[in-house]
Amino acid sequence: MSDLNQFFLQCQSRIEQALEQRLPHANHHPTQLHQAMRYSVLGGGKRVRPMLYYSTAQALGIEFTQSLDTPACALELIHAYSLIHDDLPAMDDDELRRGQATCHIKYDEATAILAGDSLQTLAFQLLSHDSNFNAADNIRIKLIENLSLATGSLGMAGGQAMDLAAEGQVLSLPELENLHIHKTGALIRSSVNMAVIMFGQVHQQEKNLDHYAKCIGLAFQVQDDILDIESDTKTLGKTQGKDIAQNKATYPSLLGLAESKQMANDLLTDALDSLSGFSHEADSLRDLANYIVKRTF
Amino acid sequence: MSDLNQFFLQCQSRIEQALEQRLPHANHHPTQLHQAMRYSVLGGGKRVRPMLYYSTAQALGIEFTQSLDTPACALELIHAYSLIHDDLPAMDDDELRRGQATCHIKYDEATAILAGDSLQTLAFQLLSHDSNFNAADNIRIKLIENLSLATGSLGMAGGQAMDLAAEGQVLSLPELENLHIHKTGALIRSSVNMAVIMFGQVHQQEKNLDHYAKCIGLAFQVQDDILDIESDTKTLGKTQGKDIAQNKATYPSLLGLAESKQMANDLLTDALDSLSGFSHEADSLRDLANYIVKRTF
Repeated sequence: MSDLNQFFLQCQSRIEQALEQRLPHANHHPTQLHQAMRYSVLGGGKRVRPMLYYSTAQALGIEFTQSLDTPACALELIHAYSLIHDDLPAMDDDELRRGQATCHIKYDEATAILAGDSLQTLAFQLLSHDSNFNAADNIRIKLIENLSLATGSLGMAGGQAMDLAAEGQVLSLPELENLHIHKTGALIRSSVNMAVIMFGQVHQQEKNLDHYAKCIGLAFQVQDDILDIESDTKTLGKTQGKDIAQNKATYPSLLGLAESKQMANDLLTDALDSLSGFSHEADSLRDLANYIVKRTF
Repeated sequence: MSDLNQFFLQCQSRIEQALEQRLPHANHHPTQLHQAMRYSVLGGGKRVRPMLYYSTAQALGIEFTQSLDTPACALELIHAYSLIHDDLPAMDDDELRRGQATCHIKYDEATAILAGDSLQTLAFQLLSHDSNFNAADNIRIKLIENLSLATGSLGMAGGQAMDLAAEGQVLSLPELENLHIHKTGALIRSSVNMAVIMFGQVHQQEKNLDHYAKCIGLAFQVQDDILDIESDTKTLGKTQGKDIAQNKATYPSLLGLAESKQMANDLLTDALDSLSGFSHEADSLRDLANYIVKRTF
């Protein structure tokens, strides 16, 4: 993320520290489970969801206190849980993630299943109780509702189920979009919407921010599909060419590479348009949208 | 549970209906995931945790409205998620549960992982938002906090990790107790404590109820270990003799069968003693304690 500005570096340092503090200690019994949880969460990652959340908070003028970090951690814990389970042999069967051995390779399958399970629980636990989190109860409830809807069978997990069902199938463009709106899009939208909830009142720009989130959620996936073809394993930190090898429906397979790139750019334009009511305070959201479409890993 | 009274039959019918209403419809996309969730939750089960929760509510004189059903559902959804994941090949590798094919046998491993994941999410989702649930926000937050602590790496999932680490190991009695206090005990305690939270104020008997819950949580596991030796697969609805086959540390393996039965009876006495401050309104809790130690499946 070296092409992003100082704000992102500050946010990255914030989220790393916040996650580190909130994860169970590695020497706390059962130690292997806690080590696996820490390994999977603290092992790098682009932290796109926390960045979106912090950038939305910035756009809304929310004060950056420790209390702001808890929902960012919850988002990243849910993301980390989903990666651990998606990488399992019964799912995508991946051995490499962020340039390192996936959780079930580093430890074992049972530990990986439990680490994912426990990270999901920790996300909801933190939103209900976290010593640095002083949001009002009604805000916490809204955050938990929003995150759980984005995470469950009508959100991210449902999208992963659609993805598995689609292997070897020919999907239409609306079907592929519906898959990714759930699989990747739901948690990305939640990242923006959780900051709006933290703002504590209805914001006139709420719908525009939500539209922004929908566009970049989809753009993120289109770019992922493009990178699976154009990048290499070392740069990606995960196995390149996996989609083709698994005969997965992707935007390039459906639209071709050129039109997929056009689609990503159109979504970027749409996302940026929906921020037109904001001045410079939404620059981080603009930078992130650009980063998502132009990133190389 | 035919040896229990009318109250339990009413509660059982309550929880079956409440779960049925709150699970995603089987024809809602992605259908296989939703079918797997329903199959695993609605496929029978003793509903011990909801029964404990309802019985504690009865002991405290809480009114039986639809609102009372939501935490009962959350408890059973967490329990169902844990069973699906525990049965996976990488974990206990069980093909039979409640006399039926386990989720990954009936569907496939990927679907079973996602069904467990989604049931966990649904539990927290319902506590944050459920159309029939009108508890105050501060009560909801306390319920989510209590349930998440009981469910995560410092509770049930941690206990399962200890259990896997203990395979083939010789455990001391305190180590075995610690394992079960987490693996089974945490959610059973939460079942009692969530009803206390729903009561909405500090109850003078709170500590006694918590002690009751600790005792029967452990008694439940001791009796489980005894049944694994003394019962048969058909009666149990799951594979009998599994503990010995997997060389698991159990109470009978550590204490012998006679002393294990004595321990279960001592725990029963202790549990009943802690209810001495209650009159007939705690009879269901007394019946449940008796049932847990004297059950044959």
